[in-house]
Amino acid sequence: MLETLKERVCRANRELVAHGLVALTWGNASGIDRQRELAAIKPSGVSYDELSPERIVVVDFAGRVVEGEGRPSSDTPTHLYLYRHMPSIGGIVHTHSRHATMFAQARQEIPCLGTTHADHFHGPVPVTRPLSPSEVEEDYEVNTGRAIVERFAELDPTSMPAALVAGHGPFAWGNDVSEAVHNAVALEAVAEMALGTRLIDAKAVVLEPYLLNKHFLRKHGPGAYYGQD
Amino acid sequence: MLETLKERVCRANRELVAHGLVALTWGNASGIDRQRELAAIKPSGVSYDELSPERIVVVDFAGRVVEGEGRPSSDTPTHLYLYRHMPSIGGIVHTHSRHATMFAQARQEIPCLGTTHADHFHGPVPVTRPLSPSEVEEDYEVNTGRAIVERFAELDPTSMPAALVAGHGPFAWGNDVSEAVHNAVALEAVAEMALGTRLIDAKAVVLEPYLLNKHFLRKHGPGAYYGQD
Amino acid sequence: MLETLKERVCRANRELVAHGLVALTWGNASGIDRQRELAAIKPSGVSYDELSPERIVVVDFAGRVVEGEGRPSSDTPTHLYLYRHMPSIGGIVHTHSRHATMFAQARQEIPCLGTTHADHFHGPVPVTRPLSPSEVEEDYEVNTGRAIVERFAELDPTSMPAALVAGHGPFAWGNDVSEAVHNAVALEAVAEMALGTRLIDAKAVVLEPYLLNKHFLRKHGPGAYYGQD
Amino acid sequence: MLETLKERVCRANRELVAHGLVALTWGNASGIDRQRELAAIKPSGVSYDELSPERIVVVDFAGRVVEGEGRPSSDTPTHLYLYRHMPSIGGIVHTHSRHATMFAQARQEIPCLGTTHADHFHGPVPVTRPLSPSEVEEDYEVNTGRAIVERFAELDPTSMPAALVAGHGPFAWGNDVSEAVHNAVALEAVAEMALGTRLIDAKAVVLEPYLLNKHFLRKHGPGAYYGQD
Repeated sequence: MLETLKERVCRANRELVAHGLVALTWGNASGIDRQRELAAIKPSGVSYDELSPERIVVVDFAGRVVEGEGRPSSDTPTHLYLYRHMPSIGGIVHTHSRHATMFAQARQEIPCLGTTHADHFHGPVPVTRPLSPSEVEEDYEVNTGRAIVERFAELDPTSMPAALVAGHGPFAWGNDVSEAVHNAVALEAVAEMALGTRLIDAKAVVLEPYLLNKHFLRKHGPGAYYGQD
Repeated sequence: MLETLKERVCRANRELVAHGLVALTWGNASGIDRQRELAAIKPSGVSYDELSPERIVVVDFAGRVVEGEGRPSSDTPTHLYLYRHMPSIGGIVHTHSRHATMFAQARQEIPCLGTTHADHFHGPVPVTRPLSPSEVEEDYEVNTGRAIVERFAELDPTSMPAALVAGHGPFAWGNDVSEAVHNAVALEAVAEMALGTRLIDAKAVVLEPYLLNKHFLRKHGPGAYYGQD
Repeated sequence: MLETLKERVCRANRELVAHGLVALTWGNASGIDRQRELAAIKPSGVSYDELSPERIVVVDFAGRVVEGEGRPSSDTPTHLYLYRHMPSIGGIVHTHSRHATMFAQARQEIPCLGTTHADHFHGPVPVTRPLSPSEVEEDYEVNTGRAIVERFAELDPTSMPAALVAGHGPFAWGNDVSEAVHNAVALEAVAEMALGTRLIDAKAVVLEPYLLNKHFLRKHGPGAYYGQD
Repeated sequence: MLETLKERVCRANRELVAHGLVALTWGNASGIDRQRELAAIKPSGVSYDELSPERIVVVDFAGRVVEGEGRPSSDTPTHLYLYRHMPSIGGIVHTHSRHATMFAQARQEIPCLGTTHADHFHGPVPVTRPLSPSEVEEDYEVNTGRAIVERFAELDPTSMPAALVAGHGPFAWGNDVSEAVHNAVALEAVAEMALGTRLIDAKAVVLEPYLLNKHFLRKHGPGAYYGQD
């Protein structure tokens, strides 16, 4: 079942490696079938070389394995929490990509310092609050998703397709798993460039709001004129 | 039409990837036929893998598509403005290459700290002024070109084949599109090395003017003695 | 003899190159057969291209060559000292990987700033004390091992599978040589990210102990639920 | 003539690319036949892809082309000056490798902060004094060699096989051109690690002299025990 989705999720997981976003097995991509309320996700701890569409695990919204022989990614409950509470998204990527993780570890949002950022993220990329001991102790992965969703109380996941989990690393998402990979690549690039910009000038200013809006809306929404129809 | 030019422009776009200057679809290269007043440029949002000479779009100086099925790069008006106002140039490259973009985001020129820089750029690489809200609102891409040309009021595009657009990223150019790629590679390298040099010593001095002149003129102009005849 | 072990050790040495952990011949991997008290290790100064299982050198615990034509790695006495005093380990990797070596040269432990670190190392990665002139003069490589073991007086090599040798570089280990490579990759990544985190915020806080424990135990020990059974 | 030497020099030039030490045409390697007093060197401005042993240019000590159709590297007079005044060396490499060039641009020696450095360079890697206007104006490339040799008045090119030219970049050398490449790779690595070490701790201490000596002599000279016989 879900053969096309499993194939896309498999390819997305491999693309994380090709884009240099993951080392070892530190990343996972998933996609969702909203009608059936089923998600396809990477099996836990399996190397990307050994991945094939048949090994992608299908789970329902409660996290029960519906198809596939392996155990799903240990981050599955986080993915599912996001899918349940962000109805507009169709794919999720989690990595420990170097520069985005540096900001997550510093527990600082990634400021919008340029148009590369504005092309993908409509404002600074937010960072979650730390989890409490009891939130870590029990249902840790669900609570990670909860902290992201809590942080998005006044943010729109469509115009801000990523979050940094404090002390951990980035999650990115999109309409589908391919767009989620795309946003994870962009996130890593803007994190690297934000760090470098601040090394050149610790007081570098954030992008003017009118230029931020222009670039984001040039690529997204009804007035977009980037790309092909 | 313009088969040779389209092939060169196609190859130049792919070279941006090979040189590590672009991720995803964040860059574009164009070339011009000055006699016919036609430019060949990358189609918007198309991945470099899928690019072929046939997909390169030909536009006239007013930006009208003369040949090709896709929409040209959204940065086409900037390229055309530069071609119209810098009659000596034959090719243009725009990227978001990491270190050049860091300087553009910090809104600082790239100081000439060494002979690698002097071999390609006859002085610090300039940065444009920020655009006003109305310049961003309307004809944004044309105004980006205008800001570059304005910044070059007292600069010669032949001896300074690049500019940083404030808050955005670099443009580089040359006699033809191949030389524009070459200069974009050099720009990224000197940006990276300038940042590193200043991390070693925040007060590192700029190159002596007589050494800057020596290196630039060793490679460019009538007395050049670098390369083959 | 030890054909399987030699093949694994050969492959591990090549993986160091594939993971970008070594340049030239700056690294070595070894594995042990605890029953026979024999270790298999890279020959000294041989390039990774030319390596084959037959060229892997077998030595006994006293460092005598039991099989193989070349001289074993000059770091062999360090490996053997670790094998003798850390009975739980089955493979060792030594590299000069860039960022881990930077911390070793700065003679600072790598602080645990995030969950990538916590997934592999149960606390800050320790650095040894400097060796005295006489320790360097005589039995230098044995004394290097001794300094590591001394530093582990109150540490468990199973939950802290790496050490930085002051002024030198990292050693990593594991149940077998493949896990040692894995830990060397993780060590380099967490070192790079720790440096970047501190560049973003010089006062970035270390991970909460309860989150450190959660991540380490999620992957290691009886309650682990990461990976496949 | 000098077929073996030309082949080695050709291969060394290509290795500079493989090791990531040069972009575009920014580097050159040469080798010498001391008996015939002839040097083989890269042609100027030729891309490494197009290089073949036949295209390597042979020059005499006065810089006259003895064999080969192209113009030799514009840095040829520097190479020849070094060969004439450093009788122990057999190969030279010049690059603009990123981190070594950063130190050259900062006009700071590379301090010996670890054993990777000590394995190859017996002390800090020196930087030349700036050239005067008249030294740049006339016989610039010869004067570059002169400044290096002047800096080595109390240094031995055998134990210090590299120099940084102030505001320019590194030269490295060795017994033959292959060893020169090897030292250029090591130089770039130790420069990168020195910069990173100082970012971790601006006051990081240099390696103890007894440890510096141990490592250098472990690999070089009559008591060396690294590598195969």
